[in-house]
Amino acid sequence: MEQLTKNQEALIKALYTRHGRKKYDLCICEGVRCCADFLAASPGLLELLVCTEEFSHDFDNYNPVRIPESQFSKLSATIASQGILAVAKKPEPVPESKHPADPFVFVLDRVGDPGNFGTILRTVKAAGLKELWYTAGSVDPFNDKVLRSAMAAQFTIGLRQFADLKTLKQTLTAFGYNRFYRTDPHQGVNCFTAPDLFNKSVVIIGSEAEGAGELDGSVPVTIPMPGNSESLNAAQAATIFLFEYVRRTFAAK
Amino acid sequence: MEQLTKNQEALIKALYTRHGRKKYDLCICEGVRCCADFLAASPGLLELLVCTEEFSHDFDNYNPVRIPESQFSKLSATIASQGILAVAKKPEPVPESKHPADPFVFVLDRVGDPGNFGTILRTVKAAGLKELWYTAGSVDPFNDKVLRSAMAAQFTIGLRQFADLKTLKQTLTAFGYNRFYRTDPHQGVNCFTAPDLFNKSVVIIGSEAEGAGELDGSVPVTIPMPGNSESLNAAQAATIFLFEYVRRTFAAK
Repeated sequence: MEQLTKNQEALIKALYTRHGRKKYDLCICEGVRCCADFLAASPGLLELLVCTEEFSHDFDNYNPVRIPESQFSKLSATIASQGILAVAKKPEPVPESKHPADPFVFVLDRVGDPGNFGTILRTVKAAGLKELWYTAGSVDPFNDKVLRSAMAAQFTIGLRQFADLKTLKQTLTAFGYNRFYRTDPHQGVNCFTAPDLFNKSVVIIGSEAEGAGELDGSVPVTIPMPGNSESLNAAQAATIFLFEYVRRTFAAK
Repeated sequence: MEQLTKNQEALIKALYTRHGRKKYDLCICEGVRCCADFLAASPGLLELLVCTEEFSHDFDNYNPVRIPESQFSKLSATIASQGILAVAKKPEPVPESKHPADPFVFVLDRVGDPGNFGTILRTVKAAGLKELWYTAGSVDPFNDKVLRSAMAAQFTIGLRQFADLKTLKQTLTAFGYNRFYRTDPHQGVNCFTAPDLFNKSVVIIGSEAEGAGELDGSVPVTIPMPGNSESLNAAQAATIFLFEYVRRTFAAK
């Protein structure tokens, strides 16, 4: 039977807090799929792999520390933790001077819900984009819940943070991205027919509670809702935009 | 200061269990938006409204019982419960003999995650459909978590349960719904170009873990994923289908 050192235990617990993740520049991937997707993307960023004694031998290449179930369950934040977690180095941030990697830039403005942020990041990856831009006031993308919901897409998608929409707009304008679309649940151009929605443009999704912030010179864009609902969940709205891009770009292939 | 009777307290606690909801034919709506949307849709189904003493007077028309915060927090399942909950009669089930209400039938096959089921139900409503069909093995749609995620769309959308896909297919075939599309993450006709996807047809979404069950005579349909992800979250896949229907039907208006 192996043991975690007291220091390792304390480190893992600290990484469930924003402060700890900032201090150590590390994060936690919990569960089989999240660990598998992280290790497939960035094996070099693995710091420590921990699993229960009973856990399968699928990850033995990575030399997991095997500890008793009772000790493991005190470490993990999730009730159904699946018996494995990885301590991972955070990937290098994308330099601010780097040109945007996608035909349009997808932005989250102060999306605070970990499940929504993570699900959107996973969907960004499925849609074939390379980056997700976001503003301060959003949840920490390296929060364990965000990592689980995103299936560790944090290790393949470039994450670019800005203080606010105004700063982000200055940067993007300098790169020649001139059309700013701000999603609105009630009014604006139709997301299914607006012609240049994904062409050197920027699509901004807001939080469910507050919507996207004001931004001078932006155009409101809306999803038609025949059911007259008040709004869609932020992750559902994001998914509709991302796959409208996929439809326009790849559907004929 | 008012009080709940011991019986009322026991009833509310029982309604957080599947057994209790079945026994009493009642359910719980928690939080401001869930209660507001339930009361807007079906005020006649209100059995009991409970809030904290400090809660606003927005719902005074419905004569809430005001109880101390300390008592309320023992009743509610949610940590951030927003201080209000409603005990509601469940709506009458849709009779099996009733003709489907929508141009196509949207089906969930054993979707067990409450957040996914609820989010999909909310999105079904936003897309303007009138019904959601589902198979046994799915989560109870009147579970409090499903009600919260759905914003109480259970009170406006007809919910129709079947033992399995085979039974459901027999019923739908008798109504002249003859095209069965089974979503598949890897292969099938393209959801953005298949011509008759929403025309006297049936679209089946499966659980994230197992996918949609086998069904004789069904056609696999898939969402193109340029990012080569393993799969999308079930609620994201459902949203893409629902709003592809909206796009084809309403985008020109």
